[in-house]
Amino acid sequence: MITNKNTDGNSNSKNKTFRKKSPSTADLVQGILNGDIATLARAITLVESTNIAHFQKADDIINQCLPHSGKSIRIGITGVPGVGKSTFIETFGTHLTALGKKVAVLAVDPTSTISKGSILGDKTRMQELVKDRNAYIRPSPTGYSLGGVARKTRETIILCEAAGFDTILVETVGVGQSETAVHGMVDFFLLLKLAGAGDELQGIKRGIMEMADAIVINKADGKNIEQANLAKVEFSKALHLYPPKENGWTPKILSCSAIQKKGITEIWEVIKAYIDDKPGLDGILEKRKIQNKYWLLQTIEDRLKQQFYENKNIKNHLEQMIKLVVDGKISPFNAAEKLLRLSKEPNS
Amino acid sequence: MITNKNTDGNSNSKNKTFRKKSPSTADLVQGILNGDIATLARAITLVESTNIAHFQKADDIINQCLPHSGKSIRIGITGVPGVGKSTFIETFGTHLTALGKKVAVLAVDPTSTISKGSILGDKTRMQELVKDRNAYIRPSPTGYSLGGVARKTRETIILCEAAGFDTILVETVGVGQSETAVHGMVDFFLLLKLAGAGDELQGIKRGIMEMADAIVINKADGKNIEQANLAKVEFSKALHLYPPKENGWTPKILSCSAIQKKGITEIWEVIKAYIDDKPGLDGILEKRKIQNKYWLLQTIEDRLKQQFYENKNIKNHLEQMIKLVVDGKISPFNAAEKLLRLSKEPNS
Repeated sequence: MITNKNTDGNSNSKNKTFRKKSPSTADLVQGILNGDIATLARAITLVESTNIAHFQKADDIINQCLPHSGKSIRIGITGVPGVGKSTFIETFGTHLTALGKKVAVLAVDPTSTISKGSILGDKTRMQELVKDRNAYIRPSPTGYSLGGVARKTRETIILCEAAGFDTILVETVGVGQSETAVHGMVDFFLLLKLAGAGDELQGIKRGIMEMADAIVINKADGKNIEQANLAKVEFSKALHLYPPKENGWTPKILSCSAIQKKGITEIWEVIKAYIDDKPGLDGILEKRKIQNKYWLLQTIEDRLKQQFYENKNIKNHLEQMIKLVVDGKISPFNAAEKLLRLSKEPNS
Repeated sequence: MITNKNTDGNSNSKNKTFRKKSPSTADLVQGILNGDIATLARAITLVESTNIAHFQKADDIINQCLPHSGKSIRIGITGVPGVGKSTFIETFGTHLTALGKKVAVLAVDPTSTISKGSILGDKTRMQELVKDRNAYIRPSPTGYSLGGVARKTRETIILCEAAGFDTILVETVGVGQSETAVHGMVDFFLLLKLAGAGDELQGIKRGIMEMADAIVINKADGKNIEQANLAKVEFSKALHLYPPKENGWTPKILSCSAIQKKGITEIWEVIKAYIDDKPGLDGILEKRKIQNKYWLLQTIEDRLKQQFYENKNIKNHLEQMIKLVVDGKISPFNAAEKLLRLSKEPNS
């Protein structure tokens, strides 16, 4: 029963599993390349470990898996709570495995850092998929900031691809900047919505509609169908007013009923169209190169900031300096210079 | 003739002007508080100076002017080239001075760094305003990156306010991220557009429509009027689909003919409504506090990055590391760690 391991969101017990026996980097990489799920899960646990002793080994595994990664379509799925993400992934994922796809379902859920749970932790919402031998469900890593969660998920994508998964679904609950993080690691970004855009838009953060490669209006069933069709028209009009995508792709508006398994084929057709047509594929490869460079520079900047804000002098003076700036007592730029000088001085 | 000084975009001649005689910080601050334009211009030249010897004096002047600043409405004006920004500012600015306002017109134009010119350099486009004693026109500072231009413009706003200007217009040509920079330093952000949104939107960058507090369709005259009215309807529909603004303000859609001086009163009424109603004013003060904090943290981050990328080891190895990452030979995070270690080592 891999499902227990799969959906085990508790890092302690994960580390326990890991401590039982510590296989070599070569063993782990070989197991991953053989598509052994237990080894994959163990390697991901190592990658997610907050234990510094594991960092080097994790980096080695990732770098050795890199040449075998990338042969998948990475699909990001977002939407406000209540839109039915889990049911959609359950239906969409089983639809794909039925087509012979190997589907890995990951999550970027910064809240799981606090709740120690995860949006994928609740197995009962994906009963079909957790039992599916061609699906691997992994909850969001815990114990990290959004930046850390995003990094770990991105590394997990590499391991899953090396293990032979050809379709990666990355779910995000859309807290803070998590959609932006997920948008930055996937090829295709799918925004789930409900009919009645006007009211429902309150729930969306700025910029998300512009990120979407497809907007899918879920729960288009029963007496919602008419409203869903109206919403489709409304969104098409709205998207018409957005600037075109860099890669020339025109975002598509679809509707579905995840619970009644309706409209799922059409969604996959759209994603296939996105991948299949030559410019689309070039677009994906080009997009991934840009994403890789983005993550390099982003990580550098995150670490530089981290080092600065962890500096004792800064910890001691930042709040007071912010107050002076907010109250208009000192110019923001002058305050920045003062803090930068402080960060280079011995503790005060 | 202050106009020559006003619109002199050439920093060399500015520094010459400045070198003639070097008044004390106290003299400059007093002159500014007295509303003496020549002194204001000289102080701004000092603030814009790339000469390190002037930095401390400039900081002192800004910090001494800060308590006297902030008593103005700061209006950002953007739009693609050809939309008629200069004509609009000419008409709008003279309309405001006729109402007894003191109007300072500044610009954020990173291209002027290269061209050594400025979008406000072309005096012939603002013949009325340059002659207007209640208007002060200052071209974009040159010799700086966008970050530098934004910083200098923001500091110039403080000096202009201390000199008694109660309306600050900040024009941006919208190159790179300049709208975002201007949006981050003004109270009210006005997007100028032309009728025929569909085609014309090609020219707008993502996110700008969401920044706008008002969208004004310019050149609504002659046979354009009908098309302008259609565009108004189209934009109203589009804005209806955006998430509401944090401060509860609903962006307004207007049309005008700057050249025929039509619809200008209505635009000012909208901006007055934005300031006058209590939440609006609270919104402005709250917004400025957030902006001040934003500029402090942004400046710190810019400087941290600058220091890192100017490091000799980084200069020597960054490109090659980016290539490895882009080609998928090494993970972005692993590469970042390597570069961060390199930045702390002696030159190699």
